Amino acid sequence: MANAGRFITFEGGEGVGKSTQIKLLSQHLERKGVTHLVTREPGGSPGAEDIRALLVTGDPGRWDVVSETLLLFAARQDLLSTVIRPALARGEWVLCDRFVDSTYVYQGAARGMARSDLDRLTALVVGDTMPDLTFVLDMDPQAALTRTHTRTGNEDRFEKFPLAWHQNLATAFRDLADQHRSRCVLIDADQAPEPVGDQIWRCVRDRLLQK
Amino acid sequence: MANAGRFITFEGGEGVGKSTQIKLLSQHLERKGVTHLVTREPGGSPGAEDIRALLVTGDPGRWDVVSETLLLFAARQDLLSTVIRPALARGEWVLCDRFVDSTYVYQGAARGMARSDLDRLTALVVGDTMPDLTFVLDMDPQAALTRTHTRTGNEDRFEKFPLAWHQNLATAFRDLADQHRSRCVLIDADQAPEPVGDQIWRCVRDRLLQK
Repeated sequence: MANAGRFITFEGGEGVGKSTQIKLLSQHLERKGVTHLVTREPGGSPGAEDIRALLVTGDPGRWDVVSETLLLFAARQDLLSTVIRPALARGEWVLCDRFVDSTYVYQGAARGMARSDLDRLTALVVGDTMPDLTFVLDMDPQAALTRTHTRTGNEDRFEKFPLAWHQNLATAFRDLADQHRSRCVLIDADQAPEPVGDQIWRCVRDRLLQK
Repeated sequence: MANAGRFITFEGGEGVGKSTQIKLLSQHLERKGVTHLVTREPGGSPGAEDIRALLVTGDPGRWDVVSETLLLFAARQDLLSTVIRPALARGEWVLCDRFVDSTYVYQGAARGMARSDLDRLTALVVGDTMPDLTFVLDMDPQAALTRTHTRTGNEDRFEKFPLAWHQNLATAFRDLADQHRSRCVLIDADQAPEPVGDQIWRCVRDRLLQK
């Protein structure tokens, strides 16, 4: 494949199926011979994973929203400079589980961090490295949370928040997809993984492969 | 003492004697019956100490300057909201080993982080909680580094940097004291601890106690 590197992100609340969909897209790309890597936020590089450990474990009230936002952008900077930008420069594609949109939803819409502060941090850290395409997976938060409760591990800080909070998140993700229509595609994730994956693959093929 | 809380910071390169001088000032305040606490940056609160661990250990090139700056401000936000502002609100004094000035010197002057970005982060995190008084301890970097080499422990990331880098820092701290003359006092720290401590105490008494 002679395509330049492409940056695709997956967004949405807890349990909407982001990692499953990333796996399915990765398999499609593999079959097409597109060199790509899969990563996640917060984390994805050794430094960012260390920061992730501070963010996702412990008491839900451990960090106020300003500290939390700054930690997320510190991790994002590390991931961008050590993993994402080098891969794109080599012509590889990058699939990332969450990116800056999650910060606008979780720390902005849900926790009240001012959009102007988020815009400045995004300009400082992300700059021109915005995703080429973002899939926003949307489903009923109650059904999504049921999925996450079957997981194991101690990374459950956000999942401890009440259902109404997750419903606000789902609304904020839908609003975000609506505000950035040229980049974001809202996907109804309340179906079996395969039809969702087929829809995502058609979109990737049409927008990023066939040119 | 009926004084309101006061916020005093100590700045300067590695090994200039900040912690010794904080100890001496703490003893003076104790004798005057001034309730106060001693803290440090990065760190000083449980969350900020966890961030400190990421910053001060490991390879000197572990973080780029943007990640490092964001981690420092995340730790500062945690220290301010959980320790410094509550203490000042109770009418206590706070003595802090390093604060935002160190970020302007280490990440700004020495590592090239833009002043405008530092100003925005300072506005977001520090806001009105700037120190009432800042002592900038100044001494020959070679002599100061000799002091730090007698220390033990693994918190030596900055001390591994070359001497010329420390000399630039010393210059940047002097410039900073010059730019903020109403808040900063430049102290010649190339003397025995006691005369330095006496000079600092006279200054605190004249500026913050006798009114």
